[in-house]
Amino acid sequence: MRRFVIVGRTAIASGRFLPKDLPGTSGRLDVLLRCIRAALLVSHGVRRDTQVYLVLLGGEEAPRTVRIDGATAKFLRPDERSLATLIAKSLGAPERGAAGFDEVRPGVAIARGGLECVLEDIGGSSRYVLEEGAADLREVPLNAESCTFFVGDHLGLDSAALEGLAGASRVGVGPVSLHAEDAIVTVINELDRRDAAGRRSVATGNGPPGSE
Amino acid sequence: MRRFVIVGRTAIASGRFLPKDLPGTSGRLDVLLRCIRAALLVSHGVRRDTQVYLVLLGGEEAPRTVRIDGATAKFLRPDERSLATLIAKSLGAPERGAAGFDEVRPGVAIARGGLECVLEDIGGSSRYVLEEGAADLREVPLNAESCTFFVGDHLGLDSAALEGLAGASRVGVGPVSLHAEDAIVTVINELDRRDAAGRRSVATGNGPPGSE
Repeated sequence: MRRFVIVGRTAIASGRFLPKDLPGTSGRLDVLLRCIRAALLVSHGVRRDTQVYLVLLGGEEAPRTVRIDGATAKFLRPDERSLATLIAKSLGAPERGAAGFDEVRPGVAIARGGLECVLEDIGGSSRYVLEEGAADLREVPLNAESCTFFVGDHLGLDSAALEGLAGASRVGVGPVSLHAEDAIVTVINELDRRDAAGRRSVATGNGPPGSE
Repeated sequence: MRRFVIVGRTAIASGRFLPKDLPGTSGRLDVLLRCIRAALLVSHGVRRDTQVYLVLLGGEEAPRTVRIDGATAKFLRPDERSLATLIAKSLGAPERGAAGFDEVRPGVAIARGGLECVLEDIGGSSRYVLEEGAADLREVPLNAESCTFFVGDHLGLDSAALEGLAGASRVGVGPVSLHAEDAIVTVINELDRRDAAGRRSVATGNGPPGSE
């Protein structure tokens, strides 16, 4: 299972924003919406092995976190407006007061809480923080079987998040500072390549891939 | 100069679509709009060394092509709705009947024509077609100084386009079939890395990089 966690420092947790002015009315939730597409959608399909968490730290209802599961989510569309509608409806759905993540639509669950809810939910998944200037993703071992990547929004990860992730590995995606969604795309391309190399190794009897 | 050319087989060339239902009313222009962001925008900035061409083959006014130049374009925003507004206004602007590309807004030019206009405009820039299963981008020489990448939309490149690009190199971006914008992000990451490696080589006196 691959997981991507995007922390939205100002993204509003209520679902109350104007679809026709997402950047101006949602605390830049648009940045996070685009990460959903980047992490979960491929050409004419969904990545069933991937979950996305949006940690929403903006507005009076914060913190809340949305989890979208590629294995069970339905009607995921790539355009921002459709994704905005999905998230707004999910945030506006009645909550049942369950602890942790409460599924409000197929494949979409909400938790009343921020990063701490995510860390509990991912269990022993290997943790990686995307950080400029850190060791190059292409050069480091990655647990492609069970990995969680933490990504900042346009403002970067705040100090509380970085503290909560003190034990995670730091990895970089290249020499240029990218949008969160492009960093995710770059990570996924590397994971896809390692998975494919692993399958080729198995097929040719050359044992497991170099990635741990 | 880096250039990315996205061919929209159904994307309408008139600018007459509904911003609140881009996928349903624009012939999937949304696919191409997202490529603008992917190619031209980085974290808090614009790639000044990059141009994007959207070849619009849908609707009665087709073919038309929009060229966006990172060096001179203004007010480029990452969200789809803002990009839709930019393209709609540009397509609706009065034309002066100039041959080739006619600048209708700062950094945005329109041509009455399709791929043939692009091929004339890019001159001797090295041509690459993104194609599934082709030689891996990471393994092939790339002319990072002057390159043009041709990308299909959700339907892929049509036979006329492929014929026009018969002499171009074919390159692949990995083992999974990606959205056009993700393919572009993957190409750019490779180019950024080669550029950085080239700068390091020059700084250490090790001569030019391996990329030709």
